[in-house]
Amino acid sequence: MDEFDLIRQFFVREGGPPRVPLKPGSLAGALLGPGDDCALLGATTTAAARFAVTTDLLVEGVHFFSDVDPQTLGHKALAVNLSDLAAMGARPVAYLLALALPRADIDWLEGFARGLHALADVYGIELVGGDTTRGPLTIAITALGEVDPAAALRRDRARLGDDIWVSGCLGAAAFAVRERVRGHPLAASHPARARLEQPVPRVELGLELAKLSAQGLVHAAIDLSDGLAGDLSHILARSGAALGTSVGAVLWADALPNHECLNGLIAEDQHDLMLFGGDDYELLLTAPTTGRRALERLGDLRRIGTLDTGPALRLRDGSGDERVLPNRAYQHFRSEADRL
Amino acid sequence: MDEFDLIRQFFVREGGPPRVPLKPGSLAGALLGPGDDCALLGATTTAAARFAVTTDLLVEGVHFFSDVDPQTLGHKALAVNLSDLAAMGARPVAYLLALALPRADIDWLEGFARGLHALADVYGIELVGGDTTRGPLTIAITALGEVDPAAALRRDRARLGDDIWVSGCLGAAAFAVRERVRGHPLAASHPARARLEQPVPRVELGLELAKLSAQGLVHAAIDLSDGLAGDLSHILARSGAALGTSVGAVLWADALPNHECLNGLIAEDQHDLMLFGGDDYELLLTAPTTGRRALERLGDLRRIGTLDTGPALRLRDGSGDERVLPNRAYQHFRSEADRL
Repeated sequence: MDEFDLIRQFFVREGGPPRVPLKPGSLAGALLGPGDDCALLGATTTAAARFAVTTDLLVEGVHFFSDVDPQTLGHKALAVNLSDLAAMGARPVAYLLALALPRADIDWLEGFARGLHALADVYGIELVGGDTTRGPLTIAITALGEVDPAAALRRDRARLGDDIWVSGCLGAAAFAVRERVRGHPLAASHPARARLEQPVPRVELGLELAKLSAQGLVHAAIDLSDGLAGDLSHILARSGAALGTSVGAVLWADALPNHECLNGLIAEDQHDLMLFGGDDYELLLTAPTTGRRALERLGDLRRIGTLDTGPALRLRDGSGDERVLPNRAYQHFRSEADRL
Repeated sequence: MDEFDLIRQFFVREGGPPRVPLKPGSLAGALLGPGDDCALLGATTTAAARFAVTTDLLVEGVHFFSDVDPQTLGHKALAVNLSDLAAMGARPVAYLLALALPRADIDWLEGFARGLHALADVYGIELVGGDTTRGPLTIAITALGEVDPAAALRRDRARLGDDIWVSGCLGAAAFAVRERVRGHPLAASHPARARLEQPVPRVELGLELAKLSAQGLVHAAIDLSDGLAGDLSHILARSGAALGTSVGAVLWADALPNHECLNGLIAEDQHDLMLFGGDDYELLLTAPTTGRRALERLGDLRRIGTLDTGPALRLRDGSGDERVLPNRAYQHFRSEADRL
């Protein structure tokens, strides 16, 4: 059972709760509920002020090593939430911080706040509220952004025949985790460490993609947190459900953009890290062929496959052979040793 | 150092971050930042769609006993956030759930979801997103509500000479905690257990108070989570800062509305539980004397003191003697034994 199953199974009810009648001019509530990178909230009577909202929880020993530099942790805790806003095409507006700490450690707090503020300043966003308490080190950030619902980059809008695109390069963060688990951690200055500990959310790219989405030149998007295979599977599942048909995909092994730190590895290891590694925080999107020119113009995007009727998600090698990829995203409820 | 000091000291910067210029029609971001029950977010170009947003973190062993019924925990986790919306005069719209669990325990999840949904249904609000992960049992809910900023019940708008009012009755939840700590836990059917484990957020009252606030008949409000003395101190501090003067208060010992389960206790114990106990989730407000008639009409509100130039917060007994109350709200970073 992965985290999405958990949410779906216990917390999300078909048709939502009994609705309380809204008074005229009041908010409609959710335009888009759980299952996407963000929820969308909006008003009934105005086109302005549509919010995207998302929350992510980081737990010591699960999402980060206990000896992580607090400044990089502050950066990453906000970055993963801004990445969800980016995956929706939303402009960051504000964030809230709920923080449990075993003790009020001044040095730790100063470092953590420094990392948080430095990233917040890039986007001019504010900490608008929060809660701090004693407890096992846990960070829950809620980020709010602004997006026109008609432009929002949803997971459920992919179409058969779409190209699959991905930004940047993949696998470096997973490589850093793997090396550490194998007992030879990378130096702090290694570029893969920066990818793991200080990911750069693709906010500007998300805003550009939202413009293209409004023109019908991008269909669906998600950010890569759990690995390309698992995250693409979310698009396939949700878009398939929306279309009422099976949606599959083929990825071209030779087109996957590996981070240069993977260059020395055999192809199978490279693919494993890129497909199942997680923590890349790049954007994965699907777009009609009519979007190619506009997407190429954005730069830093690579076309890596196509959507078809499936079945499932396959990897095609240079000789044209295909193998079905397991749906093996990072599972939070597996033993810690699997991850760290 | 209490939780508020933590937030202020490390995370809130004077003047906020460097502002990124807003494009016309975009959101203004925060209308009201940290330090109140909720943040307020709104648009520059429309009066509609103003959001109040709040987040609260509940940690096992800090905010609830490990053997608590998951259904009551689900209720309480949402209730404490709705109480923050109530304290702002906001109508609940939606919520997000970030949940860390040591293992995927089906019975626990079913019970927790049942409690959550039952309370959500009272207000017709939806779970719009979230995150679940493995980790020490921790619940972070973010609640969003709608409120007209001109009517919002803020902490920083109290005025000298205001009456102090409180809803409902106090001390029952603290009594239940105390009895448990002393080794004779109350029966599950005891009314004080319900006050501790299934608090009823004062949402409707908050909405009525917001209407009076818009008319200038209510000035400031807060919900009682950490105890009357500590929570009132937040109003005194923030309103004093806004006024540029010292704001103090006198509370009338004989007017404090104790829960009937405190009836057998000596007066000093009663006052201790009501003033420093916490977990009441009633609303505390200040209002001009011109608001008396309207507030009496609402029912279930008790006038318990007045604001003056201070110093500090004092308790006045029936003979007119006053003693200064220590600013002793519940401190999350004290040892666990202090609380449980």
